[in-house]
Amino acid sequence: MPRTGRRPGAGGTREQILAAARSHFAEAGFDNATIRGIAAAAGVDPALVLHYYGSKEGVFRAAVNVPIEPGEFLPRLLEEGLDGLGERLVRFFVTTWDSPAGSPLLGVIRSVVTSETAAALLRDFVSREILSRLAEGLELDRPQLRASLAASQLIGLAMLRYVVRVEPLASAPPADVAAWLGPTLQRYFTDPAAGAAADPT
Amino acid sequence: MPRTGRRPGAGGTREQILAAARSHFAEAGFDNATIRGIAAAAGVDPALVLHYYGSKEGVFRAAVNVPIEPGEFLPRLLEEGLDGLGERLVRFFVTTWDSPAGSPLLGVIRSVVTSETAAALLRDFVSREILSRLAEGLELDRPQLRASLAASQLIGLAMLRYVVRVEPLASAPPADVAAWLGPTLQRYFTDPAAGAAADPT
Repeated sequence: MPRTGRRPGAGGTREQILAAARSHFAEAGFDNATIRGIAAAAGVDPALVLHYYGSKEGVFRAAVNVPIEPGEFLPRLLEEGLDGLGERLVRFFVTTWDSPAGSPLLGVIRSVVTSETAAALLRDFVSREILSRLAEGLELDRPQLRASLAASQLIGLAMLRYVVRVEPLASAPPADVAAWLGPTLQRYFTDPAAGAAADPT
Repeated sequence: MPRTGRRPGAGGTREQILAAARSHFAEAGFDNATIRGIAAAAGVDPALVLHYYGSKEGVFRAAVNVPIEPGEFLPRLLEEGLDGLGERLVRFFVTTWDSPAGSPLLGVIRSVVTSETAAALLRDFVSREILSRLAEGLELDRPQLRASLAASQLIGLAMLRYVVRVEPLASAPPADVAAWLGPTLQRYFTDPAAGAAADPT
């Protein structure tokens, strides 16, 4: 795929491309962003960007610095159907945070709350890569709403368990956490009321 | 209460006291921290600390920079009893964030995820001022766990609605948000299963 004869550059080039990608994605939005635009901003050949990151999605994921691949794990979680999905998702989420992938995730949260650019990138990432996939997989009414409700419970768990570390949540076994939070996500996915509008106050 | 004849100093003195208080609380923990210790660290008279902040709790709240007074709002939310508490809490939470108090809260979240000291302070604050009061008010088994589960859903809502601003959560009316999330908190407060341990994986 790479057409230049260049050898992979030093880490500096990669970092330069990612910095350019962050600005470009934040300004243009994912849909309008192009490999060519990123390369121009970084002052490198477009082929080099593709060589390092394979695709626009690849650069995006690296720019957002999310160490997981929703296109991989979501289909696996969804293939067993809606039944028990809430608990499977919570369990996967906690296991991932407890694994070596956890520290970079902490970095993602840090950058999101301190940088508007990072927040915009993650908003795009969450909407495109996670919520839309869930929405497709679930075939429910108001899937985007249901998925974002589920995401709110998961991100809050991450904040209290891994960032602020409030007990007893911080040291509870993953299975307990899944048992407590699983039904919440399940309700967001399946309860007809969760999709309906509330009393108009 | 202040015994010195000193006039309230410039903002610099207050900031100096708060900076000293943050270090002192983070090192000593709330219970062992003293007005005397904070004053010594700030190089001021203990009476001045009391003059500005009234009590150890007062300095603490100012140091944590939380613009709300749990001792005030929690009793009000709890006095109507457990029935509908989840929805009342969510509604109060969203209304507070949507009010002028919201921007400082964003600052609290920022400092918590970027500073271990701030995280330790907030952990103390949340445990002492919010979870314990809820726990007392609720008179349920495992109140600390139930309250921290509820807090995890609320903080996640804040992250998605106010920090990352994911739609449709970001612009949903408070009443809708309360209708969606209220039952979650209610379940954490009341469901016997939420307090029980899960299958031992």
